[in-house]
Amino acid sequence: MLAKAKLKYIQTLGQKKHWEQEGLFIAEGPKIVNDLLEAIPQKVKVVYALEDWIRDNSKWMDNATIVLITEMELGKISQLTTPNKVLAVVQQFDMGIPVAIKNTITLVLDSIRDPGNLGTIIRTADWFGIRQVVCSLDSADIYNPKVVQSTMGSIARVKIHYTDLEAWLALQKGIHVYATTISGQDLATVNKMKEGIIIIGNESKGISPEILKRADTMITIPRKGKAESLNAAIAVGIVLSHLC
Amino acid sequence: MLAKAKLKYIQTLGQKKHWEQEGLFIAEGPKIVNDLLEAIPQKVKVVYALEDWIRDNSKWMDNATIVLITEMELGKISQLTTPNKVLAVVQQFDMGIPVAIKNTITLVLDSIRDPGNLGTIIRTADWFGIRQVVCSLDSADIYNPKVVQSTMGSIARVKIHYTDLEAWLALQKGIHVYATTISGQDLATVNKMKEGIIIIGNESKGISPEILKRADTMITIPRKGKAESLNAAIAVGIVLSHLC
Repeated sequence: MLAKAKLKYIQTLGQKKHWEQEGLFIAEGPKIVNDLLEAIPQKVKVVYALEDWIRDNSKWMDNATIVLITEMELGKISQLTTPNKVLAVVQQFDMGIPVAIKNTITLVLDSIRDPGNLGTIIRTADWFGIRQVVCSLDSADIYNPKVVQSTMGSIARVKIHYTDLEAWLALQKGIHVYATTISGQDLATVNKMKEGIIIIGNESKGISPEILKRADTMITIPRKGKAESLNAAIAVGIVLSHLC
Repeated sequence: MLAKAKLKYIQTLGQKKHWEQEGLFIAEGPKIVNDLLEAIPQKVKVVYALEDWIRDNSKWMDNATIVLITEMELGKISQLTTPNKVLAVVQQFDMGIPVAIKNTITLVLDSIRDPGNLGTIIRTADWFGIRQVVCSLDSADIYNPKVVQSTMGSIARVKIHYTDLEAWLALQKGIHVYATTISGQDLATVNKMKEGIIIIGNESKGISPEILKRADTMITIPRKGKAESLNAAIAVGIVLSHLC
């Protein structure tokens, strides 16, 4: 049985103030927790799980601290409306600025503020084999439980960095930069790439002018109907499906 | 000033029981309300708006009943955490089964249950010029305020139908049916189309076997990385961007 104070402590890790202070974050549900144990077991501090999950996951015993809890306890520490068997307390990642981006595609996000969108973008990037995502400093926080959950486990595999995009882009010499805008080259006519940077901007404001200046090629998803805009995560999916 | 009972009545239209009983639904925010007034003014029963919105939207005066309300009143009738200037009470659409689907692309959704996903799919379909979407009976309800809001106004332009998909598909003679699955033809090798049906399935279960039997061509979004699946709305965006 977990002490009341411990339950409270875990639960508060879902709040920015606390996850920042502790250098930890929360991930929930069999899919995400298993992906984290698979990809980065050394980062998983403690797994709190129902008997049910433990029975099916004895293989992690040697590499992780697993604590059996009751459904009532899970309900108290969970951030979800419907708690899902297991919750992991995970150490935050080393967010050091990426330097070597040769021979790979880097996705750059300028001001994606919606947590669900950011998580879905990371999941989509993972589907297309993107290994790193660089976010502007005003983007949603990767440790927000809503971001973590909506990555559906891809947070374990895709490296996320936060930095001053303008300064960082200025350092990327000799790397081709594509920016997704409303008036660029039709995406369908752009060749597939093996190396480069793809920038996606904020849904309503687009890419900020200082960042846009760094782009070599403007690309566009042609509109055939009447919707005013595309959701940013949808735009990422479409762009990656054409260029990767 | 609106009577207490009236405020309560409008607010309850955000609940399934009430929107079904009344044959009405709620739409909020300048973008969505303006799109509805533009596309289907005859369906907009009453617009409840702050002075601010009314000042900028006098052009609708002749075609719509506009009621001035206070911020406090808007807070009481709104379904949003942050109410956004205007709320419209709208008459539900005629959901009659679509029969003539020649010369157009029809998007078919098998069991998309997440309201946000359904709304984003409708918005994405609208971007690509799709005029009608046919949903299985167990899909999210189009009049759920979360669906309405996430269409970002596209609900005013895209026709949505709910029907027994298996029976409906059986009636579509001579129309080519594409189904998005995990093991089909690479999407990039499929020709663009002017007419046909595209089926997207439930995110975790895929397309149900009875529906899949009706497909002429299975198509797939090739995976290059490790994510287990793509969000259904992302899949719609990618498929439409390649085929439309």
